[in-house]
Amino acid sequence: MKPKTVFLQRFLLGILVAGLFAGCSVQQKETQVSEEVDPLPSWRDGSSKQSILDFVKQVTDTAAAEFVLPKERIAVFDNDGTLWSEKPTYFQVEFVLYRIKQLAPKHPEWQDDELIRAALKHDLKTLREEFGAGGLGHLMALTQSGMSSDTFENTVRDWINTARHPVSGKLFREMVFKPMLELIRYLQENDFQVYVASGGGIDFMRAWIPQVYGLPRDHILGSMLKYRYKKIKGRPVLIKLAEILFVNDRDGKPKLIHQVIGRKPILAFGNSDGDLQMLEWCGSNQHKSLTALVHHTDGEREWAYDRKSNVGRLDRALNEAEKQGWLVVDMKSDWKNIYP
Amino acid sequence: MKPKTVFLQRFLLGILVAGLFAGCSVQQKETQVSEEVDPLPSWRDGSSKQSILDFVKQVTDTAAAEFVLPKERIAVFDNDGTLWSEKPTYFQVEFVLYRIKQLAPKHPEWQDDELIRAALKHDLKTLREEFGAGGLGHLMALTQSGMSSDTFENTVRDWINTARHPVSGKLFREMVFKPMLELIRYLQENDFQVYVASGGGIDFMRAWIPQVYGLPRDHILGSMLKYRYKKIKGRPVLIKLAEILFVNDRDGKPKLIHQVIGRKPILAFGNSDGDLQMLEWCGSNQHKSLTALVHHTDGEREWAYDRKSNVGRLDRALNEAEKQGWLVVDMKSDWKNIYP
Repeated sequence: MKPKTVFLQRFLLGILVAGLFAGCSVQQKETQVSEEVDPLPSWRDGSSKQSILDFVKQVTDTAAAEFVLPKERIAVFDNDGTLWSEKPTYFQVEFVLYRIKQLAPKHPEWQDDELIRAALKHDLKTLREEFGAGGLGHLMALTQSGMSSDTFENTVRDWINTARHPVSGKLFREMVFKPMLELIRYLQENDFQVYVASGGGIDFMRAWIPQVYGLPRDHILGSMLKYRYKKIKGRPVLIKLAEILFVNDRDGKPKLIHQVIGRKPILAFGNSDGDLQMLEWCGSNQHKSLTALVHHTDGEREWAYDRKSNVGRLDRALNEAEKQGWLVVDMKSDWKNIYP
Repeated sequence: MKPKTVFLQRFLLGILVAGLFAGCSVQQKETQVSEEVDPLPSWRDGSSKQSILDFVKQVTDTAAAEFVLPKERIAVFDNDGTLWSEKPTYFQVEFVLYRIKQLAPKHPEWQDDELIRAALKHDLKTLREEFGAGGLGHLMALTQSGMSSDTFENTVRDWINTARHPVSGKLFREMVFKPMLELIRYLQENDFQVYVASGGGIDFMRAWIPQVYGLPRDHILGSMLKYRYKKIKGRPVLIKLAEILFVNDRDGKPKLIHQVIGRKPILAFGNSDGDLQMLEWCGSNQHKSLTALVHHTDGEREWAYDRKSNVGRLDRALNEAEKQGWLVVDMKSDWKNIYP
């Protein structure tokens, strides 16, 4: 054998062996990393966090009896009070009040309207006690219809990027729950299809949820107004009407989940009685499922409320959670951080 | 150097070299294959096929001005007459007539009903001329409501796997258009999100479209009945009601596409006036779009009809196609094969 050939052989052997070792060490490193990284760093160690981790491990483990195919790993989250705050009132109501103020100068005929006067004064108490849901519906119709869906979305986008919460002074879009954003990401990394199923308006949510939560536009389920299809200078547009097509609350949630997704979720997260039927629907899945509530127990870092709250009342669903053994996340003790 | 070491070196060298050659040859083979394979073998070479190939090439080429991000590559297809046949009547009507026959023995009170008598005789002419859309709606309500969505889907599944077409004798599920199945696959391989947007019932389609077209359940848009949420022995079910929630036809199509997908398609395929607004909607996309009609011109292999047909009338949309320069696929000359 010529020295050159031997050298070449040794050289190639060296590459091969080094490659094998490199391969091993990379693999070892990856294993170590995946063991070390906590996918839910804003959750305190405890039974809530553990039951989430255990659930995801079971349904994604091909060797486990609880294994669920990726296409059936549907997760649904309520929005207000579950993924972001909802006090002193739903943030979409804040948007409506902002729009009334913005539009008022163009509508002198609004001057004598008691409802609009309360709105302009940001008087939530009067709005709630004297005008109720009907009054709010009227304000929504005034401010959220008569324009194309694109124009409406741009209006919301301008607002969400600048508007601040009356109490915290934060941008509304900063008042999202960091532990829940981590959970969404963790589920997506485990091949879950993650959806929002909210009573809020679908066009309102599409303006910011993709950027803020990292969810695609077609994974947002919400209440819907009817549209009119119309051509303006030959170009088709969809004009939002002041007529309701669908209210995505209470038993509306399982209905719309079925119409749009067509599968029962294996994970559902809510925080109020409006989520009860969605949670029941998830809990009746033939696969192993995780059914959970966020309980607002932290009056210092966020708000503390449940059975008697006007907004986000949690009463019947809390009873049902106890009866069915659903996971009840205690915001105060389970979450290290609230906002990002 | 000991003989054993030399042997080991040679052995490892052999593996390394063989591996390199194997790698090269595999890579070469893949390149050749991808150049040779025709993604649309059932389409005859010609301008229709070429405009589809050109369109897909342009919107997927990152260097092209027409490039469209994968998340915006939305393609929508009508179903009846676009992906499968629709003569002598919509196949869902055949299902309804089958169900009337199946249920009649349990309903002696139907005996004196002229509408049901015509249905039992499969008398499409009388049904159409004497009872019209209202009569059909009544038959649909009788056969497609009052049961859970799961039960209904199972009924459809039993039918689609065994029921045969009155003229061709084929299974209905075999009367799908092979060129269109190839197109769906080709679009999916190019990272399009492919949806069906049909006037047919969503629960009817979900029973077979995933298997037959290879589309996921949440990529099917159709007409919807309302549901009632109900608990049976503590287990929640959705019961189909005889009330319409949404008719996904004409201007309903762009509306539902917006509500569910939230993006304007860049490709839309239809075959009748019921698809006109969906095609206009697609054609108004700011991105390059492909707007197309299947023209039923093949009375020998399928059916030939357009402006005067009762089912799948193509009149206004054909005028619009000429005016706007939409692609009109001529079934007879453009398709080598019709059915698989």
